This record gives sequence, structure tokens and C-alpha cells, in this order.
Amino acid sequence: MNFASDNASGASRSVLERMLVVNSGPSPAYGGDDNSRNAQALLSALFEREVAAFLVPTGTAANALALGALTPPGGGIFCHDEAHVIDDECGAPEFFTHGGKLVGIPGVGGKVTPAALTQTLARFPRGVARQVPPATLSLSQATECGTLYTPAEIAALSAVARGAGVAVHLDGARFANALAGLGCSAADMTWRAGVDVLSFGCTKNGAVACEAVVFFDPAQAATFDVQRKRGGHTFSKGRFLGAQMEAMLEGGHFLELAAHANRAARRLADGLASLPGVRLAFPTEANEVFPIMPARAEAALKAAGARYYPWATRSVAPDLAPRDGEVMLRLVASFATQDAEVDAFVAHVSFALHVRAAP
Amino acid sequence: MNFASDNASGASRSVLERMLVVNSGPSPAYGGDDNSRNAQALLSALFEREVAAFLVPTGTAANALALGALTPPGGGIFCHDEAHVIDDECGAPEFFTHGGKLVGIPGVGGKVTPAALTQTLARFPRGVARQVPPATLSLSQATECGTLYTPAEIAALSAVARGAGVAVHLDGARFANALAGLGCSAADMTWRAGVDVLSFGCTKNGAVACEAVVFFDPAQAATFDVQRKRGGHTFSKGRFLGAQMEAMLEGGHFLELAAHANRAARRLADGLASLPGVRLAFPTEANEVFPIMPARAEAALKAAGARYYPWATRSVAPDLAPRDGEVMLRLVASFATQDAEVDAFVAHVSFALHVRAAP
Amino acid sequence: MNFASDNASGASRSVLERMLVVNSGPSPAYGGDDNSRNAQALLSALFEREVAAFLVPTGTAANALALGALTPPGGGIFCHDEAHVIDDECGAPEFFTHGGKLVGIPGVGGKVTPAALTQTLARFPRGVARQVPPATLSLSQATECGTLYTPAEIAALSAVARGAGVAVHLDGARFANALAGLGCSAADMTWRAGVDVLSFGCTKNGAVACEAVVFFDPAQAATFDVQRKRGGHTFSKGRFLGAQMEAMLEGGHFLELAAHANRAARRLADGLASLPGVRLAFPTEANEVFPIMPARAEAALKAAGARYYPWATRSVAPDLAPRDGEVMLRLVASFATQDAEVDAFVAHVSFALHVRAAP
Amino acid sequence: MNFASDNASGASRSVLERMLVVNSGPSPAYGGDDNSRNAQALLSALFEREVAAFLVPTGTAANALALGALTPPGGGIFCHDEAHVIDDECGAPEFFTHGGKLVGIPGVGGKVTPAALTQTLARFPRGVARQVPPATLSLSQATECGTLYTPAEIAALSAVARGAGVAVHLDGARFANALAGLGCSAADMTWRAGVDVLSFGCTKNGAVACEAVVFFDPAQAATFDVQRKRGGHTFSKGRFLGAQMEAMLEGGHFLELAAHANRAARRLADGLASLPGVRLAFPTEANEVFPIMPARAEAALKAAGARYYPWATRSVAPDLAPRDGEVMLRLVASFATQDAEVDAFVAHVSFALHVRAAP
Repeated sequence: MNFASDNASGASRSVLERMLVVNSGPSPAYGGDDNSRNAQALLSALFEREVAAFLVPTGTAANALALGALTPPGGGIFCHDEAHVIDDECGAPEFFTHGGKLVGIPGVGGKVTPAALTQTLARFPRGVARQVPPATLSLSQATECGTLYTPAEIAALSAVARGAGVAVHLDGARFANALAGLGCSAADMTWRAGVDVLSFGCTKNGAVACEAVVFFDPAQAATFDVQRKRGGHTFSKGRFLGAQMEAMLEGGHFLELAAHANRAARRLADGLASLPGVRLAFPTEANEVFPIMPARAEAALKAAGARYYPWATRSVAPDLAPRDGEVMLRLVASFATQDAEVDAFVAHVSFALHVRAAP
Repeated sequence: MNFASDNASGASRSVLERMLVVNSGPSPAYGGDDNSRNAQALLSALFEREVAAFLVPTGTAANALALGALTPPGGGIFCHDEAHVIDDECGAPEFFTHGGKLVGIPGVGGKVTPAALTQTLARFPRGVARQVPPATLSLSQATECGTLYTPAEIAALSAVARGAGVAVHLDGARFANALAGLGCSAADMTWRAGVDVLSFGCTKNGAVACEAVVFFDPAQAATFDVQRKRGGHTFSKGRFLGAQMEAMLEGGHFLELAAHANRAARRLADGLASLPGVRLAFPTEANEVFPIMPARAEAALKAAGARYYPWATRSVAPDLAPRDGEVMLRLVASFATQDAEVDAFVAHVSFALHVRAAP
Repeated sequence: MNFASDNASGASRSVLERMLVVNSGPSPAYGGDDNSRNAQALLSALFEREVAAFLVPTGTAANALALGALTPPGGGIFCHDEAHVIDDECGAPEFFTHGGKLVGIPGVGGKVTPAALTQTLARFPRGVARQVPPATLSLSQATECGTLYTPAEIAALSAVARGAGVAVHLDGARFANALAGLGCSAADMTWRAGVDVLSFGCTKNGAVACEAVVFFDPAQAATFDVQRKRGGHTFSKGRFLGAQMEAMLEGGHFLELAAHANRAARRLADGLASLPGVRLAFPTEANEVFPIMPARAEAALKAAGARYYPWATRSVAPDLAPRDGEVMLRLVASFATQDAEVDAFVAHVSFALHVRAAP
Repeated sequence: MNFASDNASGASRSVLERMLVVNSGPSPAYGGDDNSRNAQALLSALFEREVAAFLVPTGTAANALALGALTPPGGGIFCHDEAHVIDDECGAPEFFTHGGKLVGIPGVGGKVTPAALTQTLARFPRGVARQVPPATLSLSQATECGTLYTPAEIAALSAVARGAGVAVHLDGARFANALAGLGCSAADMTWRAGVDVLSFGCTKNGAVACEAVVFFDPAQAATFDVQRKRGGHTFSKGRFLGAQMEAMLEGGHFLELAAHANRAARRLADGLASLPGVRLAFPTEANEVFPIMPARAEAALKAAGARYYPWATRSVAPDLAPRDGEVMLRLVASFATQDAEVDAFVAHVSFALHVRAAP
């Protein structure tokens, strides 16, 4: 019963096996290898246009380098006020943007709205050398609350950004889960909706360590290889990144893995929501579930050795927020989550609630 | 006949297999896993003291983060004027030291001498806010010329550095080759000789992508986990770095791999040096060979499809330097180099020289 | 009737005349001059202990350099969420702290409370490489709302900071006004209350361009001269900074200037507050007044050519906040403000209110 | 007899008096004042085209900000290997270019030649993410050896730079002395010769603290006000920078001051060169003189209380370099240098040489 993080799972066996396959013989170093090249071609196919894609080993590297490519030194980066880039990357975005300022925008369910974005941008007038100049909007898809933007919602936010001369980055650490959740095309969710650069995550979804920074306009990527190398993120044995991406993309393997995780989350959400005294803080649209439950139920889970994080957030709607004696949890399903552990988890909660309700 | 780089080889099969072994089941994310912990213990054993070791995927990350830990923002870093950190890392050391200045010191055979170091440091007087303050000495072991510092030579350089309030970093991208070449202990070559922080390389030597930044005084590493994360170099699935390091260190596997590469380089050096008209620019002390040969011999190699880099360097002694009609090459042997390709390479050179010498 | 900013005034004549006095003859460059040395002695006397003081030309330089001295690269800096350092310095603090993150803390009247500080720090647990590590608390005295911390309040905040391993910076752009307002000693308001480094402002108070970064523990300033030079803030002709500081400090001239500004602000506050329909958003404790008045009164001021900024702030208590048809202004008095312009300003408001009230 | 630096002199009286003149009454803060605007107009007139000019207080700020405007983060900056930007600004250029790398080019007399520039640029091939990408050429006019580039020489270097996609910066800390020395127009020496951005120095030439960063293509300056503010170099009381520049430019005052300094240097050079046993290391083309003399002569100068710096340089031609028993000095004349001190200095040397020659 490990729902602590999708990062707690290992890698899809197909990914590791592909790494063994590409191991034999010499291969050009520093990204000149066939596998990296092929990965780029597969990404172009997925996105239905020629993209410039750069493989890196971590999600933090992908986000920070992507923001660095879009943001001049010291520029303003706008994101949800609980986004991963503002809260969980230890200052990497500030480092790679040479002192950029991340400006948080509050919003229910982890989502930024066009109105809130407009209002925040208004605090940063151009032509006044006092506030940092707005440079980039960073959206998370799926969000930190496991919710999704529709392509239309992304397009509306991009339009506001564009109107303010602000570029658009999509943090797709859980992009595959979003794609599986929405059932739309990768192109619809990105460049057709105004996204400039995407952090395309594979690690949480079953890679060993592999993400792609995807530029939909290759011209914007002119010096990105230099920035990647300067960040220490260019693999000398590039084939081992290329192979991971190949294994994920070929035959839509990444989508199968994500769909599995989403189904597990759905099963978990349905099971929990059916229990009296349990409610969900956010709709379950990808692979994360945020139940609110009586503290005694959570105590039972802890006693049973279940793994998860208790969760504090300013994103929950006031009428849904935890009350005294209640606890909110974050539960993350992965490609490796099994129905049995989902069902066991729900059963523990159910049992705890009924036992206590007894006398 | 691929002698372009040790990075052109894949990974040791033991390393990849270990990655498969550790893949099953959940594991704490972000370096809290057993394999990372065990890797640290193995490194402590190797160095005969408790070290603080941090795994990262690339040599550039290891060097740049290590220099960042020793160098205050904008400090001076002293190194050989053809060191990898000054010439081949695309500004990563400057980035991770927030604008540090790399100061090159000339020296024959890729080595810094105490006299040259003393003379260079004299140009950076303390207490004068005009030049950057000296902070760190970075030595490469093996050097860019495939030569080695003895522990006594490192100690002498450390003493000069120490006297000037300067910390000592060792770039050990080919540390294993140096260890195999000198036959001394890892402790003698590092902290006993005054080294503060080591970039312990495994990738060139047969890992997929794994290096360790090793602090011999764990107190100096107090905030290094933050800096590693901030650089985007903390793996979420840390077990896959830990497993690589375990596979390399257990049973001295890394030393066997390096010894193999050194033997191949020795065989290549001996074969080439025995040919009339060929000489070595530097002694072959690790896994690199730098022959100087008539241009017609190099043309034959190229025609035969051999892979290597022609090499330009200011480090060769004047009496050995290439003359008109001569070419210098860099040949790198790896754990995967086979005697057959070494012998074929030598044979091509031999044939080309004899044929042409004929009439 | 110029109440736009204390920066809109020129310099105290004494300051400019002192610059003329020190002009004759040669003098050592880059801060080795007698005037800079004397300024440091005068500051030591003012603060009743040996300080290390460094003169710079702008308040932004003073704050950003001071924060850079206290904050390791990428560290967290805590301040009121409308502080000058977070809102008005165009990213200079982020630049000089190499990507530090400024974390805003809400608070009524521009003031941080110990409870709010404690609560915010709790979001940044140590030992977790995810959030930036807390490094520095920056307090403004006087605040952006023209209010003051008592020495006891500063001490209470310093104690919270100290307990979290966080250093304390005081942004004293209007330090003299605070000193004149509280009537306490400079030592009581700073190091005796736990402040590590002070930005001691003179420019707003009547200098041409001169601030001091004051370290109460000179050991913390060991490399500050390097950082100042690296920021481009070391004057070659240091005498002209030294002379300004001498002129300000000798005979308590800076306190006279500040007391004048405070008296003008008090006169303005009293005049406005006595008018029906006008109230003050914050108590007038230094040289700034924040009246809330009917829009028609503000229209009359504008028509009369008065200069000031309309003001938006989240710091005003809910029951005092402007209602429909009301406008909040910021009025700043300086050493050069004259009673006549204060009285004229009040008269314009009074007239507008009475005229309109007459049916 | 103070020839230590032109910075050792105070300011031209006209400059200080102008500061007094502009002191009365309120004026918009942060560069919106009339004097700053007028300074920009005067600079446009001097350069015979519309320029975008930004006033800052120090030469280091001007250079570092100018380089930051032309150089992307981590880019390569090429300059003479004893240029002020590489040797004497304490890492400010690296700081403001976010880790740019300064690459020194050797050259006699402090000058870079097109051949040496071409050769150095060849070491930095484009499209290889290993070396930093070349971004900017920085030339000093006058050079650190007191020599001058002709407009044709600057144009030849600019052409090489342009061909490599490299922008051109001119460090004009002693621009006025160069202009007075060459007798050409300011336009001929800058944009007509391919210069993109100029650091136009006034401080060494008689200002209190005032330099201009001059963009010949205002479009390149679009975000420079932000960068200036972010560096802490925007004066709140901008009138006091504007007034200095006005005083320097009106009626060609800056050229008169520079011509005076050049004449004093010429008198000094002629006097010294006429003495047996004294020779000049470099031609005296601006306001600096570099005599090489017997050590006993220098001892006499020291005994007489003369102020200057002994000088070590790699720029002197081998046949002119100091021999055993000889000393090289740097002597700098300023707008305030008087014939009497020049003559006294020469007389001391002359006397020392004749006395000792007398057996």
C-alpha cells in the first residue's frame, strides 16, 4: 500500500530492457547517438510537428532549463501559488533563470484562472523599472491537486499571457496522465493551445530518469544545447536517455502506463468516496486522489503500514476544507499500482470507520 | 577501432544488471533509498574514513557542484590551462560558482607545478578588492594528457594552496584509471594528500551515468543536498544511481575495468612507440595515448575507419611537439577496448609507414 | 505641494558644501580616503560599538548587497509582503543573492508579527531539499506604511529568526525618521534588538546619493569589500561618499533633517484627520501619511497640481479600508517640506469637502 | 607629485557647481528628471545620432552592465589579457553576465590585433556545446598601456567580431583622453567603426562619479533600465548624475580636461625620455606614461614622496622590457596635474641619474 509518490515505483521493465539492448558497441557521445535522434523523431510524431527536444534526467532540470530558455535573467515567472516550480524545486527555477522571481497566483483545485492571471499581471506594469518584467507563465498539467486543464482552458490562459508579452511553459511531469485523462491529442494540449515549451515527463510514469524539454518552435531552442551542458545535464552516454524515451513512446507504451495509473486512482477514489465520512477535496482527473477523512481512519492506515503524505493546501474550496478531527491525504497511483493494494487501502479505511461507528 | 572517447563505450553489463535487480518494489524517492545509502558506505570503506558522498549523473555536474561547494560566489578557481573544467564544460563551473573566474596555469604534460601555482597565486593578492579572491585549486587526475600526479605531487600542490587559504578539488573523471596506474590507495591520493573534495567518476569507466561528489570532511557538505537539488541533479528514483555505484565498487569491479583500459592503452602505446617515425607526446600512465606520427599514417587510419580525435595542445614539451607533416592524435582506451582493435590500429600505422617508406 | 517622494527633494545644502570642501588635492582611490574612514568612525560612535560600514550610492545597492552578505546562494529571505525589497527593487535582491527567494508575509500596517513569521518559517522545514533553506529576515524601519517597530518588537522578531537559524537585516531607508520618531538610541533599535546588518539610508533624508551597509559584527564583513566592488558600487573617488556621510552625521544633522520631515508629516496628518470624511489608514509615526478621502477631494488636489501617489495596499485593516467613492493617497514629507505647502494641501482638501457638502 | 591614478584627483569645479545649481526644488525621481534627459540629448549630439544613454556612478558598473546587455548568460567575452574588465573589476563582468567567461588575448602595447582575435575565436567553434559560445569583444580605448586604437583599427577588429557573430563593446574609461589624443570625432571612433555599446567615462576625467552606457542602436537598450535598477545603479535623485554629465559635455568641457591631462603626460614623457638611461615602454598617446628607469632613480622618487605604481605587464615588447636593475612605472596625469609637479618629477629622476653617474 504505497501511495507516497509515483516516484516510489521503479521503472517499467521495457525501459530497462531497452537500455540493455542499446548497450552494445560504440556510439557517439554527448547526444550525437541514434537513440537520442530517434527519440526526437518520435516526439515530433507524437506532437504532429517538427519539435526540438532535449533529453535530461530529472523533472527539476527539465522545468528549470525550460524556464531559463523563456525567461531573461531576473524576469517574472507566474504560476499557481502551490506549483511544483515555486514550492518543491529548491530554488532551481530561480537558479536557472539567474534570479528570476516566481510569482504565485492563488486558485482553487491547483488551477490558475484567466481572471486571476490578468489581475496578477496588472501588478507588474511594463516600462517601470521597479517590479521585475513579466516573462513566463508556467502551468502544471496535471496540477498539484491532480486536476486537469482542458485544451480550451490552456488556450484561454495562453491568450492572456500572449497579450502581455508573456511566454507559456507547461510543466508536464504528469503529462501522460493528463493525456490519458482527457483523451485529447498531445498537440491539442500544447502548441495548438499556445504552449511554447513543454517539460515532457517520463520518470514518474515509468522511466529510470528521463524527461524531454520540447520546443514547439525549434528556433527558440537555438542555444539550448549550451544551456543544458552548462547545467551539467548532457549525458556523455546519451544513448541511455534516448533508449528510455524510445521505449516509452514506441507503441504508445507511455500512454498505457499512465492509463493504468489513472484507472488505479479512479478505483481508489471511487472506493473512498463511497464511504460515509470520506469526501474528496478535488475531482480525480489523473493519478492522484485527495481524500478527507476522520483522523481515526488515517490512524488505522498508518498502523497498517500504508504509505502516503498528509496534505496541507490552500487550494481546497472553503466548503470542502478539512474540519476539526479530519485529515487530508495525498494518494498517488503509478504504473505499478495493483488493484489489491488499492482495495486493501479502502478496506482499512472502511473498517476503521465502521468499527468506531459501532457502539 | 574506436578510440574517440571512453564515453563512446556503453556500460559494464554488471552495472545494467544491478539496475534491473533493484527495480522491484517501492523505494523512498530523492536519495532516501537503501542503494544510495549503501553506495555511501562503500565509498567510506574505499577511502578509509567516513565521507559524505552525493551521487549525480554527469561529470560536469560533479565538477561544477563540487567547485560551487568550495568557492564563494565570484571566487577564483585555479587549474591547468587545458583542464576539462576550463575548456570543456561550457561554463558550468562559472554557472555553479555564480560567476567564479577560472584561471588557467600553463604546464607541461597537463600538470600544474607548485612553482607555477605559487607564481599565479601571487597575481591575486588578498585584501585588494580588484582581483577576484582565490578560493579553489582544481587538479585533474588523470590529467587531460593522460598523465598522473603522484600522491607526493598532490600533497605539494595542496600545501601551496593551503598556505594561500585555497581549498583543493580533484577532478577524478578518470580517478579509477589513476588508481590502477599508480597502485596506491584511494586515501593516499586524496585526503591524505590534502584534497578536500573529489569528483569520483564512474561513467567513463563503465557506468551508465553515475559520479559521486565526495567530501572528506562531511561538515563541508552541510548544504550540499540543497545545491544538488537546486542544480536539478537529485534523482527522484535514487536507487538507479545507488545501484550503479554499488555495482562499480563491490568486489573492486571499478578497478578491474580501469586496469583493463590501462592495459589496452599500454599495449597501444608500446605498439605505436616501436614504430619508426612515431613518438609519444606524453608518457602513457593511464588510459590515454598521444602519438605523433607522419600525416600519411593518420590518413591511412582515417581511411580504415578508425575513430579518434586529432589533438592540439599547448602542454607538449617543445622538443617533442609535432613538426610540419606530423599529426598528434588522442587515443582513449576503455573497459571495452579489445586487443584485436588495438593491434589492428597499430598494424594500420605500421603498414602505412612501411609502404610509403618503400621506394 | 510635492509629496510624491522624499527622493523628489534635492540634497541638504550642508552635504553639497562638504563635497566641495573635500574636493581639493589628491586622495587615495577606492575607499582608502580619510573621509570614508571618518564616516566609519562616526557610525561606530552613533551605534556605540565598533562597526564595519561600507558606503554605497543607492538604497537598492545597500539592501541587495546586505542581503547577499547574509544569504547563501538561493537561500530564503522573509519579509513583509509589500516590503520594498520584494516589490520595488526590480529583482536586485534576487540578483545579489544569486537566485534567493523572497517570501512575503502578510501583516497589517506593513509590519510582520512574530506569529506570522513563525507560521511562514514552518513551511520551510530544514533538512528537506525541496524548499529553499531559510536564511534571512528583512524588516523595514520605517515600514512601507510609515509605521514603526519598537525596539522590543524588533527583538521579538529577531528571537524567532535566531531560533530558526535565520539572520536579521534591517532596511533603514528611512532609519533616521524612525529614530526621530521613536526617540530611542540607534543601538537599541539595531544590534541590541538582534539586528545583524543595517541598510542605513541617507539619500531620502537629504544626501545626494549615499547609504551605508553597517555590520555590527565586523567579522561578518570579511569579504564585503569584494562583493561591493563586484557589484560596481565602490566609488573610485571615495571621498565624495565619505563627505556626504560626514556631513549627515556630524552634529546630528541627519536627525535634525528627519525630525523636520516627521514634524511636517505630523502637521499634515493632524490637518487632514481633523476634516470630516477623511481618515488615516495607518498611524503617522515617521514621515509618511496615508489619508483616505472622498474622490472629489482628491480630484481637487490633482486640479491644484499637488504631487503624490494614489496608493493600493493589502496592509490596511479591513474596517479602515477605502470604500466606494474613496481614494487612498501616500504623502511623503522630506527635510525640505515647508509648512506652507502642508497647509495649502490641507486647505485644498478642506475646501473641496465643504464646497461639495454645500447643497 | 601624485601620478598614482587619475582617480586620485577630485572633481572639476564646474561639475560640483552644477550639482549645486540643480539642487533647488523638487524633481522626478529615478531618472525622470530634466538633467538626465538633457544629458542624453548632449550625448546624441556628440555622437551625431540618436543614442540611448544610461547614467551610472562607476566605471565598473558601466562596463559590467554593458557587457551584460551584449552577452547572454555564460557567454564568452574576448578582451586583451590585461584589460581592466578581466583583471581589475573583481569579477563584476562575470557577475553581470551571469557567469560569462572572459578570455584574454595577448598583444603588445595593450592592443588586440585582428590576427590574434581570429586565432582566439577559432578555439571557440559554434555548434559544439563544450566551450562557451562567443558573444562579445571588449576593447579598451585608451588601453591599459596608454595607447590608442585608430578608428581604422577598431573597424578592422569589429569586422572580425561581426563575422563571428560577436558584438563589440568599447571600454571608454579614458574615452575623452583618446578623443583628445586622436583628434577624430566621437562617431568615427565608435559606431562608424562598428562599436555597439560604449562605456563613456567621466569620473577619471573630472566628474564626481558619473559614466554613461551608450547604445548606438536604442533598440538594443530595450530592457537596460531594468538591468540598471537590478544592479542597484539607478539613482533616486537622478538629477545629480544628469548635472555631472551636462557640466562635462557643455561647451566641450570634457575635452578640455582630457587635453590638459594629455599635455601633462606628453610633457612628462618628453622630459623622461630625454634622460639617458630612461626609455618608454609604450608610446604616450593619451594621459599615461610608462617609463623604464634604473632602480636608483625610482628610489629617489620614492624618497621624494612621489606617488605612482610600479608596473608589471606582459604587454611590453621583448626588446624594450625592463632588464635587471631597471624598474617600470605607470604615471597617470589628470585634469588637475600641474606643470610644476611634472617638472619636479623629471628633475628628481634627472638628478638621481646624474649624481650616481658621477664616479
